[in-house]
Amino acid sequence: MFAVLCGGVGAARFLLGAKEVCEADQLKAVVNCGDDIVLHGLHISPDIDTIIYTLSGEINPITGWGLREETWQAMGNLAKLGGKAWFNLGDKDLATHLFRTELLAQGATLTQITAALAEAFGVEIAVLPMSDDRIETRVLLDETALGESGEVGFQEYFVKLQHNVPVKQVRFDGASSAETSPQVVTALKEAEVVVIAPSNPVVSIGPLLALEEIRQAVSKRFSQGRPVVAISPLIGGRAVKGPADRLLSELGAEPSSVGIAKWYEDLIDTLIIDQADSHEAEAVEALGVRCVVTATDMSQPGVAADIAKLAFGL
Amino acid sequence: MFAVLCGGVGAARFLLGAKEVCEADQLKAVVNCGDDIVLHGLHISPDIDTIIYTLSGEINPITGWGLREETWQAMGNLAKLGGKAWFNLGDKDLATHLFRTELLAQGATLTQITAALAEAFGVEIAVLPMSDDRIETRVLLDETALGESGEVGFQEYFVKLQHNVPVKQVRFDGASSAETSPQVVTALKEAEVVVIAPSNPVVSIGPLLALEEIRQAVSKRFSQGRPVVAISPLIGGRAVKGPADRLLSELGAEPSSVGIAKWYEDLIDTLIIDQADSHEAEAVEALGVRCVVTATDMSQPGVAADIAKLAFGL
Repeated sequence: MFAVLCGGVGAARFLLGAKEVCEADQLKAVVNCGDDIVLHGLHISPDIDTIIYTLSGEINPITGWGLREETWQAMGNLAKLGGKAWFNLGDKDLATHLFRTELLAQGATLTQITAALAEAFGVEIAVLPMSDDRIETRVLLDETALGESGEVGFQEYFVKLQHNVPVKQVRFDGASSAETSPQVVTALKEAEVVVIAPSNPVVSIGPLLALEEIRQAVSKRFSQGRPVVAISPLIGGRAVKGPADRLLSELGAEPSSVGIAKWYEDLIDTLIIDQADSHEAEAVEALGVRCVVTATDMSQPGVAADIAKLAFGL
Repeated sequence: MFAVLCGGVGAARFLLGAKEVCEADQLKAVVNCGDDIVLHGLHISPDIDTIIYTLSGEINPITGWGLREETWQAMGNLAKLGGKAWFNLGDKDLATHLFRTELLAQGATLTQITAALAEAFGVEIAVLPMSDDRIETRVLLDETALGESGEVGFQEYFVKLQHNVPVKQVRFDGASSAETSPQVVTALKEAEVVVIAPSNPVVSIGPLLALEEIRQAVSKRFSQGRPVVAISPLIGGRAVKGPADRLLSELGAEPSSVGIAKWYEDLIDTLIIDQADSHEAEAVEALGVRCVVTATDMSQPGVAADIAKLAFGL
């Protein structure tokens, strides 16, 4: 069994490849919920949804989020009413949030609801929220950012401001008191390999590692010499999508394979990097991290499966 | 200025006529919120929405509720997920509930939100929720009802069970401690005439009169000899729409003009009844209530305006 620490789009693409190289019941995705947001009273879990939609083939292939063949009546009317419409929720997508919110109100856990959603979408991989408690990724914007300052929620930074403002600090509100689920703890303990997906280290994997139980489980594996493999989300020192490179810089880390290796220090034994960054392999290995160089552009056919094979040691 | 105590469809049609016979700013609709329901985390106010949609011309003319040219993607997908889909929420209609829920979470009152919605829909009549507090109409089903017993929320009775089960009792949870808004109190005090719309006396007007401030304001007017006029929702002893006649019977009242006059005893001085019930006029007057017989079928052109003229004494 393989456990994968996941953010959204990058992780979802990796999982698509992973399920080509092993049985679906051998895969457990532990997914970031720090991006979750309550909007209009609805509980939205963007990373979980991106993973379920991607694995089911229902993802919108153009946007990379939301559902295919979507319509936008609700948002169109909300905008007419003068409501907050910066976070786009398609009509079909809304059903997912209505379903989740109703069941949460009835006392179901996010873990239970996510399992029900995955099943309804025909996803066979175990999709495990990192926690049933509320953790909120909060982004402190740099004072020098014109027009915007202070702390905002992750989606305000990412979607509303289009991550187009410098960041001073990121914190995970609620993480210190949050628990993770027994399923997550077991998955991280029993997995043959734990993989850190090619997701944003700061805001996608960061919330997972901010949970004491997850960090300790990964750290313990590392100290016992049991495999923990990270896949760099950078190609040629740049994020494939999103602000990973900029965020690393802004928080004082290097936006490079070496920066990633240091970010995951004492947690990973292997880092898979792109061939465009092969010149960094030696420096990564100098940190005591085994460095595997390969093609990592998952927009190309077969690449995600090949990376999964390498990561899983198959 | 005229104040109208309102339920949903019948009241909305009456108001459409009323605004033909007086200026819009002379009309204040005080609307039932006992039917309000929180579903999927969203606060839904069916009677308020029916009134706003009807007055704006956006009501779906076929169903009598919801918006015209509606689509059903969200509900269709929710049903596929196995979610509760018995309460139909169209995609465009959802925007109203998202808007309301978001603003409630931000601390706005239902009164403020309803005013914003009315304005966005171009409705000039003041639409006043009966209260900013939560009052829930609860329906105790008769034990003899096959398969269903115990107490259910109003929408479960009305929509899910299609009011197709006998009722033993109706109560208005929260009404004894709820306050109404200053706008409502002022409207009922200052109106030249208070009109009770042709709505269900039990479950539409009932919640309004269960609020001490509203009942007292109407009762005080009555005792001072200031006009309070009710319009019977029955034609030929039957409800035009919905279960008013059956509910009256089940709760021990007569489903007739006389029954309505008794239901509003010591609150109204005038009852407008349909010509099909003209044989009851004498019995109504014997109760000390002036009885006006006229055509009340508001599906016919001009009828709502004619009733409004009579009710307002114009």
